[in-house]
Amino acid sequence: MIENVVFIGAGNLATQLALAMTDKGISVKQIYSRTLEAAKELAVKVNADFTDDLSNLIPESDLYIVSVKDSAIEEVLRNLSLDKNQLIVHTAGSIPMEVLNRSTNNYGVFYPIQSFSKYKNIDFSDIPICIEASHASTLLKLQELAQRLSSSVQQINSEERKTLHLAAVFVNNFVNHFYAVGAEILQDKKLDFNLLKPLIRETAEKIECMTPIEAQTGPARRNDQSVINEQLKMLQDQPEFHKIYSFVSQSIYHIHLKQKHDLL
Amino acid sequence: MIENVVFIGAGNLATQLALAMTDKGISVKQIYSRTLEAAKELAVKVNADFTDDLSNLIPESDLYIVSVKDSAIEEVLRNLSLDKNQLIVHTAGSIPMEVLNRSTNNYGVFYPIQSFSKYKNIDFSDIPICIEASHASTLLKLQELAQRLSSSVQQINSEERKTLHLAAVFVNNFVNHFYAVGAEILQDKKLDFNLLKPLIRETAEKIECMTPIEAQTGPARRNDQSVINEQLKMLQDQPEFHKIYSFVSQSIYHIHLKQKHDLL
Repeated sequence: MIENVVFIGAGNLATQLALAMTDKGISVKQIYSRTLEAAKELAVKVNADFTDDLSNLIPESDLYIVSVKDSAIEEVLRNLSLDKNQLIVHTAGSIPMEVLNRSTNNYGVFYPIQSFSKYKNIDFSDIPICIEASHASTLLKLQELAQRLSSSVQQINSEERKTLHLAAVFVNNFVNHFYAVGAEILQDKKLDFNLLKPLIRETAEKIECMTPIEAQTGPARRNDQSVINEQLKMLQDQPEFHKIYSFVSQSIYHIHLKQKHDLL
Repeated sequence: MIENVVFIGAGNLATQLALAMTDKGISVKQIYSRTLEAAKELAVKVNADFTDDLSNLIPESDLYIVSVKDSAIEEVLRNLSLDKNQLIVHTAGSIPMEVLNRSTNNYGVFYPIQSFSKYKNIDFSDIPICIEASHASTLLKLQELAQRLSSSVQQINSEERKTLHLAAVFVNNFVNHFYAVGAEILQDKKLDFNLLKPLIRETAEKIECMTPIEAQTGPARRNDQSVINEQLKMLQDQPEFHKIYSFVSQSIYHIHLKQKHDLL
């Protein structure tokens, strides 16, 4: 059973995961970050040691969690000097598990499907945690750990995880960008973004009780060209928003045509 | 004071508004729809008469609410034969109030910023209702009516309403489409869309406590080209999603560049 962990990384995900683990009685022994200040900031919250030197990692811990940005994983792994039997996982959606096999014989992935902020704490209890491991015994250990945090633990391989991450980019990063676009459109005319918040809430809530295809409304769904053309005209000074409006509208129309066709 | 209303239209918005008004003690006297069945379905719910013939409208009602799709408004108005002093409003985001001025001397707009479904009932209490009217006295009447339904009543002119509707298309219709894209990407690989629901909820909740710009995360925000290119490759057989992925990623990057620049 995993009783204690070391975090390699102190970003949003590491922060939220370290807080949640501490809350469940799992001891966070050490935080590493490239910047000592970041390591310290998190370490203070979870009562851990901290370092900015990978060669100073505590040599014995039940689990090492590499939670740095994708492009930094390789460099971090190159500079690790742990015993080859230590259990190491990463938390990245798009990185195959096998990147860890040069650093250790005992590895896996611990990927919560969620978007984390440093200062908005997350309740992990219904967040799907996707796990994958090099050995069946390791998988069981990770499963037991994940189950202490969440009621939704999923065994997901690296290919599937990449697909989940791609879909997550659409429903999280891209959705959030459309909130930003909405805010900017209103700001240009001195209108208050708060006016859209109940609509944003309802849009997210709707798909709890119907599919997104069923939930779709609006001019593109109805192929209402007069509204579409008028709205495109309003965006003529914002070519990037104009292009996105046009392509997304087409895509909505096509997905509904296809849907109708599939139902025939 | 408006005590009773007639609905011209029986779609999602008319349905939810009629239910909410009935609930607040406002009497819905009649429902018109082009299809008698639709008129009847709503009329039964709110204990009203129903008709599919515009020349059969009850001649005296405190308010006539035209709630049909944008492209049908003109035809409906052409076929109305009400006294020129009757109060008529429409509920459309993108249609100027003045389209009503040939049908009556006494008119306005009653536009709730929300996305309505026929079978998911809506609590109007925090939904912004945007009102506009031909006369100050009419505005007061509409305001009093709106305040019985919602604590957020906004006086918004036709230009502003068009802007709100455009922004609403992004944060509602387009956001929902990205839920559909996410669902389709997962379905192709036999993965369960429910895995994304906690992420969708959190994405919507986040902007209650930070701006969308602050909330943005992900490969496009970090300009992480290796993830972006790999995800684009995964979409190569779905050219429409590929194009959207590429443009939205660019737009995210640019909005953050601009943000950084504005802060300097």
